[in-house]
Amino acid sequence: MWLNASCLIEFQISVPTPFLLMLRPRSGSQQWIMREEYLLSPSVPALEFTDMFGNLCQRIVAPAGNFTVSTSVDIETTDESDTAPGSPFIEVQLLPPDVLPFLYPSRYCESDRFTEMAASVTANQSPGYDQCNAIVNYVRKSIRYTPGIGQQIISASEVNQLGQGVCRDMAHLGIACCRALSIPARMVVGYLEGLEPMDLHAWFEAYVGNRWYTFDPTQPDLKGGRIAIAFGRDAADVAIYTQFGNPVDLLNMNVQVKKMTGPGYHSKAQ
Amino acid sequence: MWLNASCLIEFQISVPTPFLLMLRPRSGSQQWIMREEYLLSPSVPALEFTDMFGNLCQRIVAPAGNFTVSTSVDIETTDESDTAPGSPFIEVQLLPPDVLPFLYPSRYCESDRFTEMAASVTANQSPGYDQCNAIVNYVRKSIRYTPGIGQQIISASEVNQLGQGVCRDMAHLGIACCRALSIPARMVVGYLEGLEPMDLHAWFEAYVGNRWYTFDPTQPDLKGGRIAIAFGRDAADVAIYTQFGNPVDLLNMNVQVKKMTGPGYHSKAQ
Amino acid sequence: MWLNASCLIEFQISVPTPFLLMLRPRSGSQQWIMREEYLLSPSVPALEFTDMFGNLCQRIVAPAGNFTVSTSVDIETTDESDTAPGSPFIEVQLLPPDVLPFLYPSRYCESDRFTEMAASVTANQSPGYDQCNAIVNYVRKSIRYTPGIGQQIISASEVNQLGQGVCRDMAHLGIACCRALSIPARMVVGYLEGLEPMDLHAWFEAYVGNRWYTFDPTQPDLKGGRIAIAFGRDAADVAIYTQFGNPVDLLNMNVQVKKMTGPGYHSKAQ
Amino acid sequence: MWLNASCLIEFQISVPTPFLLMLRPRSGSQQWIMREEYLLSPSVPALEFTDMFGNLCQRIVAPAGNFTVSTSVDIETTDESDTAPGSPFIEVQLLPPDVLPFLYPSRYCESDRFTEMAASVTANQSPGYDQCNAIVNYVRKSIRYTPGIGQQIISASEVNQLGQGVCRDMAHLGIACCRALSIPARMVVGYLEGLEPMDLHAWFEAYVGNRWYTFDPTQPDLKGGRIAIAFGRDAADVAIYTQFGNPVDLLNMNVQVKKMTGPGYHSKAQ
Repeated sequence: MWLNASCLIEFQISVPTPFLLMLRPRSGSQQWIMREEYLLSPSVPALEFTDMFGNLCQRIVAPAGNFTVSTSVDIETTDESDTAPGSPFIEVQLLPPDVLPFLYPSRYCESDRFTEMAASVTANQSPGYDQCNAIVNYVRKSIRYTPGIGQQIISASEVNQLGQGVCRDMAHLGIACCRALSIPARMVVGYLEGLEPMDLHAWFEAYVGNRWYTFDPTQPDLKGGRIAIAFGRDAADVAIYTQFGNPVDLLNMNVQVKKMTGPGYHSKAQ
Repeated sequence: MWLNASCLIEFQISVPTPFLLMLRPRSGSQQWIMREEYLLSPSVPALEFTDMFGNLCQRIVAPAGNFTVSTSVDIETTDESDTAPGSPFIEVQLLPPDVLPFLYPSRYCESDRFTEMAASVTANQSPGYDQCNAIVNYVRKSIRYTPGIGQQIISASEVNQLGQGVCRDMAHLGIACCRALSIPARMVVGYLEGLEPMDLHAWFEAYVGNRWYTFDPTQPDLKGGRIAIAFGRDAADVAIYTQFGNPVDLLNMNVQVKKMTGPGYHSKAQ
Repeated sequence: MWLNASCLIEFQISVPTPFLLMLRPRSGSQQWIMREEYLLSPSVPALEFTDMFGNLCQRIVAPAGNFTVSTSVDIETTDESDTAPGSPFIEVQLLPPDVLPFLYPSRYCESDRFTEMAASVTANQSPGYDQCNAIVNYVRKSIRYTPGIGQQIISASEVNQLGQGVCRDMAHLGIACCRALSIPARMVVGYLEGLEPMDLHAWFEAYVGNRWYTFDPTQPDLKGGRIAIAFGRDAADVAIYTQFGNPVDLLNMNVQVKKMTGPGYHSKAQ
Repeated sequence: MWLNASCLIEFQISVPTPFLLMLRPRSGSQQWIMREEYLLSPSVPALEFTDMFGNLCQRIVAPAGNFTVSTSVDIETTDESDTAPGSPFIEVQLLPPDVLPFLYPSRYCESDRFTEMAASVTANQSPGYDQCNAIVNYVRKSIRYTPGIGQQIISASEVNQLGQGVCRDMAHLGIACCRALSIPARMVVGYLEGLEPMDLHAWFEAYVGNRWYTFDPTQPDLKGGRIAIAFGRDAADVAIYTQFGNPVDLLNMNVQVKKMTGPGYHSKAQ
């Protein structure tokens, strides 16, 4: 499936303000970046680096005034997300080292507090993929997906008490439960084709059967059409922008995802 | 200063159990490992790897029965920890990329909840080292150091409410406040010569004036004689052992740190 | 300076053939990728990874038949390359660890054989930048730049004996001499605005005065308008494509670099 | 098998001289460091870092006068090196990214010049392990192992012409031939129990059947009892010491490897 996804963010800034941005998706095994655009307006010097999870990050100091970040990608991604019922749990001693950080509790996924709940939710499931699936079904059933609430990020425990949340919150709860079972789980921020209302999206991946599989507690079916922008332990690692110093005004944020007929569409237009 | 430090941990294990260990200190800029010993008894295959923070980690599956991990190091370390009153805050855009992960909130350091408190505690301090110092003084004054409590790890918010804690808790509170001011801060687990009662110790480092400085809220003076074993965002990253599966019995843990007269002491003995 | 650079490579392939490609420039401190396009035609699955020097690399298996790789970037780069006469030599013990690999001899830069020559070429120069400059002047004077020769890659020793070469050969000789003086030096492959005849270009960087500086033995003046695609020890590390198995036919390769009036040019056109 | 290996190096130095050392073996999948000792005499500040191949490296400035580096390890290693006749060639597109650097030509392994020879030497062999084996047999047969010659490091081409060499040279020739067949191959420097005359040793590993296998052209049988100290592309990457500046006098170098009865031997002695 070929998609064009774009994200426009507009700030009003009173004093020069440092930002960390994470808005350049990478090509990987699941997605190929065919065309990409990344505009800073006004244009300021930017420094790009790779973080410890492999994400491409950009550092800038945004000048005072109106400041806009505008990104767009044409990408080939899978039509459907792989599923693997019955795929086995991988013993900790057999996990690749780069997967191990996703076993530990993190800021918004206090997996150390979910041992009993995760065991109860997955009772009678065979260890591995089926446990993850039972967790996702539990999250879907017990947390009401409520787009638009959730300015302050809350943790998995708080989400579980509150009973409602945004995509990020539901992913955090799913991740916390997986890790409580010694299943590595990581947060993904990205685009999802057909999301209603359209916005950036968050879901999670769990490592079973020797690879990462996608899980999305907010969606009834495991749709494809996903574009991963960043991976991390939880929302603290994958903020698409982190602003330091005095708060700035976010004037506008516009996200769009469109199906393309094929790779040549945009380039023909030029 | 030459030190010999040792750590003996004895488990009673009912079924073969995977462990992640973090018990091999590394030589670095502050410490030189002159002699090191790492025994697993009974001897089992072990796989060593480097984690994302540069720590040497060991993976094993401990067999059923009595299992002992015994490590010992002879090390040269600094007599005193450097201090740098007045050392300046480093703007986020000028921090080295490998320091940035230590700016974000983490499991036990919810820095996103400490913005106001950190500002209040450091009012009138010049940005940088002096802010860190004010934070440490605040932690010393407001949290009663209570060795021996604290089986379950609690977070900086919980420590702050409780008003007492172990070294790990006090470090978490200090880290959370530093990060709330955009000062990178990281947890250190290691040995401290002269600690009473002797045990493994935890303190923290903050990045100001273009390098990491040591802060230790549990100690009245900033003593040297430190041996760092592991660095991370908080206690979730630097557990000296993490055990997966059914709980095992910790029968005994013995930590010793002794001053040596010089590097040749042990080797002469052989 | 805003540039649009493009590279089109066309192969005739008889059996499915694995390729490693290195054709996605990265944003860094010197250049910002504003727009980028990377087409494989026919479209095949591609896997992207980061190599040990930080380059983005793509792996594909090209199908039998006509196969085209077409890339294009809009980029902001510096108008002039920095120079720093008098900038000092950095003692080996003070070099950052990631710079050290560029001190050693490599396939095409046998620095271990250039100790005497490098000393003689730089006699009376102050250690550091001025030595590099003397080396570049020597290469310019003693090697005749002969675009179009040089199918087989030859080493710095061979270049020095032959007395002529392409940009890659002259860079190899410069690198070998710098390393012979314990100055880290690395190969850069990329685009250069205004190059005659237009093609991909190779130059080198040397580490003095605590940063990398650009040197280009093929150009009379140190022009800006450079786009770095890949960094490595020598040509063995930075081939824009490496093909495995039976040789394929390279039908066509077309490189273009154009000045743009500003960042908005292309996006307006859509 | 439990071994104690030690290396003593003694220099006479006229002016303070920077060194890079690579003398701390790491625990990994094949070897467990149970006890280790690393003495610099006189004691000087040392900085340890990890290079791009995962080796632990030490940087020091050796003072004028007599300077001694003395290391010793007690280690558990395998009794026999694994062999795997028939183990298959891995297609380039399926190799892990960290294996790819070992496909390219390097300073002393000009694999780009060995395409024909490698094909001829391995004619009729099934792709993979059997090709490596044929290469090693060829090297054994055509190069006379001549310990003690070889002050200056020569390349695989030169070794092949000369018809004799030390262990390092024979490894280089084997590596060059493997890479010419698109089989990743890397240099190993380490200890070998029972080597005659005792010294540091060099051999190589080739990646077939999804893992690294040991090959040693200097030994009639593939003995175990190996301790790897460092891995790299060739001798340029794995020098146990690299000295910069004016040459120093190597007064003495003494290497010993002894079988131990078990892990407790040394620690009991203290």
